[in-house]
Amino acid sequence: MDLVDKLAIKNERKLLLFVIDGLGGAPQDGKTELEKANTPNLDRLAEKSILGLTDPVSSGITPGSGPAHLALFGYDPLKYEIGRGVLEALGVGMKLTEKDIAVRGNFATVNDRGIIVDRRAGRISSVENERICKILQEHIRKIEGVDIIVHSGKEHRFVVLFRGDGLYPDVLETDPQKEGNPPIECRARTPESEKMARIVREFVKRAKEVLSPPTNMILLRGFAKHPGLPAMNKRFKLSCACIATYPMYKGLARLVGMDILESGETIYNELKTLKTNWHAFDFFYFHIKKADSLGEDGNFNGKVRLLEEVDSVIPEILSLLPDVLVVTGDHSTPAVLKSHSWHPNPLLLYSEFVIPDGITKFTERNCARGGLGRFPSLDVIPLMLAYGLKLKKYGA
Amino acid sequence: MDLVDKLAIKNERKLLLFVIDGLGGAPQDGKTELEKANTPNLDRLAEKSILGLTDPVSSGITPGSGPAHLALFGYDPLKYEIGRGVLEALGVGMKLTEKDIAVRGNFATVNDRGIIVDRRAGRISSVENERICKILQEHIRKIEGVDIIVHSGKEHRFVVLFRGDGLYPDVLETDPQKEGNPPIECRARTPESEKMARIVREFVKRAKEVLSPPTNMILLRGFAKHPGLPAMNKRFKLSCACIATYPMYKGLARLVGMDILESGETIYNELKTLKTNWHAFDFFYFHIKKADSLGEDGNFNGKVRLLEEVDSVIPEILSLLPDVLVVTGDHSTPAVLKSHSWHPNPLLLYSEFVIPDGITKFTERNCARGGLGRFPSLDVIPLMLAYGLKLKKYGA
Repeated sequence: MDLVDKLAIKNERKLLLFVIDGLGGAPQDGKTELEKANTPNLDRLAEKSILGLTDPVSSGITPGSGPAHLALFGYDPLKYEIGRGVLEALGVGMKLTEKDIAVRGNFATVNDRGIIVDRRAGRISSVENERICKILQEHIRKIEGVDIIVHSGKEHRFVVLFRGDGLYPDVLETDPQKEGNPPIECRARTPESEKMARIVREFVKRAKEVLSPPTNMILLRGFAKHPGLPAMNKRFKLSCACIATYPMYKGLARLVGMDILESGETIYNELKTLKTNWHAFDFFYFHIKKADSLGEDGNFNGKVRLLEEVDSVIPEILSLLPDVLVVTGDHSTPAVLKSHSWHPNPLLLYSEFVIPDGITKFTERNCARGGLGRFPSLDVIPLMLAYGLKLKKYGA
Repeated sequence: MDLVDKLAIKNERKLLLFVIDGLGGAPQDGKTELEKANTPNLDRLAEKSILGLTDPVSSGITPGSGPAHLALFGYDPLKYEIGRGVLEALGVGMKLTEKDIAVRGNFATVNDRGIIVDRRAGRISSVENERICKILQEHIRKIEGVDIIVHSGKEHRFVVLFRGDGLYPDVLETDPQKEGNPPIECRARTPESEKMARIVREFVKRAKEVLSPPTNMILLRGFAKHPGLPAMNKRFKLSCACIATYPMYKGLARLVGMDILESGETIYNELKTLKTNWHAFDFFYFHIKKADSLGEDGNFNGKVRLLEEVDSVIPEILSLLPDVLVVTGDHSTPAVLKSHSWHPNPLLLYSEFVIPDGITKFTERNCARGGLGRFPSLDVIPLMLAYGLKLKKYGA
């Protein structure tokens, strides 16, 4: 990819990466979600496009959202890792800096001997969670000059950022991951992480002082540092904008340096945001979450209908005349599996310079016969840049 | 592959890797062996499967059985090498330990000035070979505490294992590979191999003492150490069984830690073994040798008939309800070439989670149009694990 960074040049052409989360599926009664869906607009677009299938990480590997998106954004997901704590922080909408160590927390219940009797403190309500986080935050703002930032999550979950200099995440998790044990005392696993471990121990100690039963303990795991990714803008000479409705995807986009546009809650809000900002950027990441959620729920027909809804906005997307448009998924989420999967992502790439496959329906099986073949998701950005005439020649 | 090892989990699903040695061919009068063969069962299976082509090593490389199988078993054939001596030892059915250096030997004839006049001692009979090996073994059992294990091979060939501590294979071969020269004295090529060289010189000296014309010399080459491969069972959390009729393939399977099942001499014996042991393992390597042998013989029609015979057992294989079934070759052996070749291997993968290509005949050309595309044989195991739901998600 260093080569691509070196060859990238700026021009006025507009690239649109349209990501339908969990797009790819698997057959139920012989047809995948995409095959079942009535998608006349995507099909017409496919006919003018070149198709292919992408692997986010490698053959057979089912990726989480983090690695799947990194690959799509042009970052090798095996080289750059986004730790659990960071992803959790992004998911609740926290803005991370490069000085942050993020960690996910559970509110838990311990008995009078300090033994964990409930790792989830009876799955307290989100309202109760918010109330407790507020108390924690009021009582603990700084330890050894390091800022402590607490944010509530769903049920028993919360996130803490430790923001300061000289912090490293190589410390023991305090969550033993099963009940009947005491919490683990946080210890450094490397000499450079001593400061972090000390601060965590102090944080746990102070937290215990202000908490009361049944929510009388915190358990911390997934300590992770901001990954410090080089910005897309700089790497690819693109001004990049993110249009997404869910915090985690905005967070991932922020990690690679995109501008995050206010995009509301629905695909129609997102479309409006795209139109409004069309002239201000030359790369747009447009994210649609619900296909993944419906796949995870095992709701085959719901996913089919969602894909049909997505199809209906395609003409408005095309009316903006993007120079390069890619429609794909980050990973597959077949309803029959109710989870992310290893199946490669269907992808279409439209530009005036493609040699169209002339295939008349956008489906997994048709993408398998497409001119782009099967390739790593990591190649999507280089291809978009190329079709956007944004890559210089290599060598003489 | 380290990633796959890390993500592998155990479950009850059964994987069957059905390897037709030398499966792929090349056209004679316009059709390959597989295209000429009448294979209704494989064709019906192909229709429900996803197809592809695999490269054992890399584009254009013709592999030996060793690297081709390593790749299929999930071991990078460029990282792990199986030396000639080891392969020869496996071929005659010897069981190797990690303390062994294996070497192949020729019985030869030297004249009274010690010059080699026949590198094959007149291609003595296998019976004569066995007799001489017995004499050698009776006279030479141990040198410097190292066990010497002699095993006869075909015609003038035999194998010796040197079993002991502190042995390294970096020594000169004693076979000058042409007549009119004296045998080469074995010398160490690295300081750590001094002991080995000394033992080999002593072995040759003592052998000369007990041999008599025309078989009055031994020539040694292909010194190789047991490769010490990490076991498949451990890497992939699979309990693995090998069903094969030829010693070399059992030996290769043993190197990667498979249990070797007694499988008789024919495909029907092998099938019976598979049925009997179906409940005891979760991964089966099922090897059919004859397609390769017939290809090597240049027997196009014989290979066609063999493929038809293989086809006839497919229904019985399917009646076991494997969760994931791969039918492929280790390498191609086109009858028109009378040898292994670089042509990629046709492959079909059947599982309830595939998006079938709907292609109705299992051939090289159809596999080239399959949804799996063209990929390294090394990805076969990751794919089988994925379709068997035996790989955890990577990243969050």
